[in-house]
Amino acid sequence: MAEINSDGAQDLIATALHMADAAGQTILPYFRNTGLAVENKLDQGFDPVTEADKAAERAMRDVLAERRPYDAILGEEYGSTAGTSGLTWVLDPIDGTRGFMSGTPTWGTLIAVSDADGPILGVIDQPYTQERFIGGLGQAQWVGPHGSGALQTRATEELDQAILFTTFPEVGTPAERSAFECVAAQARLTRYGMDCYAYALLAAGQIDLVIEAGLNSYDIQAPIAVIEAAGGIVTDWQGGPVHNGGRALAAANAKLHAAAMELLNA
Amino acid sequence: MAEINSDGAQDLIATALHMADAAGQTILPYFRNTGLAVENKLDQGFDPVTEADKAAERAMRDVLAERRPYDAILGEEYGSTAGTSGLTWVLDPIDGTRGFMSGTPTWGTLIAVSDADGPILGVIDQPYTQERFIGGLGQAQWVGPHGSGALQTRATEELDQAILFTTFPEVGTPAERSAFECVAAQARLTRYGMDCYAYALLAAGQIDLVIEAGLNSYDIQAPIAVIEAAGGIVTDWQGGPVHNGGRALAAANAKLHAAAMELLNA
Repeated sequence: MAEINSDGAQDLIATALHMADAAGQTILPYFRNTGLAVENKLDQGFDPVTEADKAAERAMRDVLAERRPYDAILGEEYGSTAGTSGLTWVLDPIDGTRGFMSGTPTWGTLIAVSDADGPILGVIDQPYTQERFIGGLGQAQWVGPHGSGALQTRATEELDQAILFTTFPEVGTPAERSAFECVAAQARLTRYGMDCYAYALLAAGQIDLVIEAGLNSYDIQAPIAVIEAAGGIVTDWQGGPVHNGGRALAAANAKLHAAAMELLNA
Repeated sequence: MAEINSDGAQDLIATALHMADAAGQTILPYFRNTGLAVENKLDQGFDPVTEADKAAERAMRDVLAERRPYDAILGEEYGSTAGTSGLTWVLDPIDGTRGFMSGTPTWGTLIAVSDADGPILGVIDQPYTQERFIGGLGQAQWVGPHGSGALQTRATEELDQAILFTTFPEVGTPAERSAFECVAAQARLTRYGMDCYAYALLAAGQIDLVIEAGLNSYDIQAPIAVIEAAGGIVTDWQGGPVHNGGRALAAANAKLHAAAMELLNA
């Protein structure tokens, strides 16, 4: 892991928050903007989500170009940009594009800073609800429309007491769906449709498990940092690192993680 | 339908908004309050959702006792109270208790005013996100954290362009699930997990269809009033009235409603 002193950590955190502000301001005019879709109806191929996604990534890259030009960038929309610092910003301007398209306020902007071993800082930002979840480099906090507080995962140890989330009932391949359903059959409650917001709820101590498949690195790096800072565990379905994407198992604590992993591989 | 003049309509709307304020203020301290659950761990049977649900219905009934004691009330938690005006307030303090338990901001307080023929006014209120959707008696508007506007359903006429929501993939009985899946197979996008928030999104022109089963009258009366005021249609799966509960088909417009109903009954 790269050595980062206190000033370095403060600069990374301030930069990440500045980027989240820039992304939110860029995206919000596109969200639920039925007028925009109608105005551009004749413009073949106009897609408000894609436009917002790209514009927000450009806004975040502009912040980095000014504040931290020596860091590398991996963004969903504009790919990789090399750097010299050993740190990479991993960006998903709109995680949950199908939720965004539907007007649900459960998509988010994902911002992570990664070193060679994985993410060291993550932000999950929901600009419509004005909620932000920050984890890593000594931070573990949420901010929302009614206040703020510390992120702390739950102590739930038994699957039959656990609340489980995934985004789509299909989960992934038929085999991945079956594995998920083995865990769901034991859980107290299974819910769908929240995209990255489910990881934020796990970090905030509201739910216990998130299981997904087919992820890209930019989908999972910010959730890993936020959840680990809050006391949770995020791995692939075999217990290995998942910061490069794939199948993710996020759990509030080690006992629940082990119980879910056993069923995923049964 | 009861004759209601302009002053009468204004009083009903003002009363409904006052009730929504009272319910929201009552519920929010229970929402995501992990401390409350821990404090009451030893108190056998303490359930924050049930406590919030009951307290919010009492708060709404207190408003009615002061402002409109002659109206009847049907509430999820405290049942029926007789009245003499021919109008009934139909109340669900927390629609989407499983979403509430999970910390998702997609539950809502549902308030409807009904005459002998069904709802004439509805409010869907989400106090955490500070969103409110009001329809009926000349109103069709949303208010949110970034502004306000008119509710207007979409013009989407083809199922393969439609966004469809339901709360649970199971929908209801196996036969109800199969019928739903016939529509889902034709839709552009199917999403889950939003409870009453999906009806609000339909009224706001963000999605096109909501299909659910096993509803109570207090689950559907406010959505009916809000969606109809926005130009949409809400019936049971046979095209009849659904304000007494059962299976609901809510659509952005008549053509889409007919197309979905045909598949539900195929």
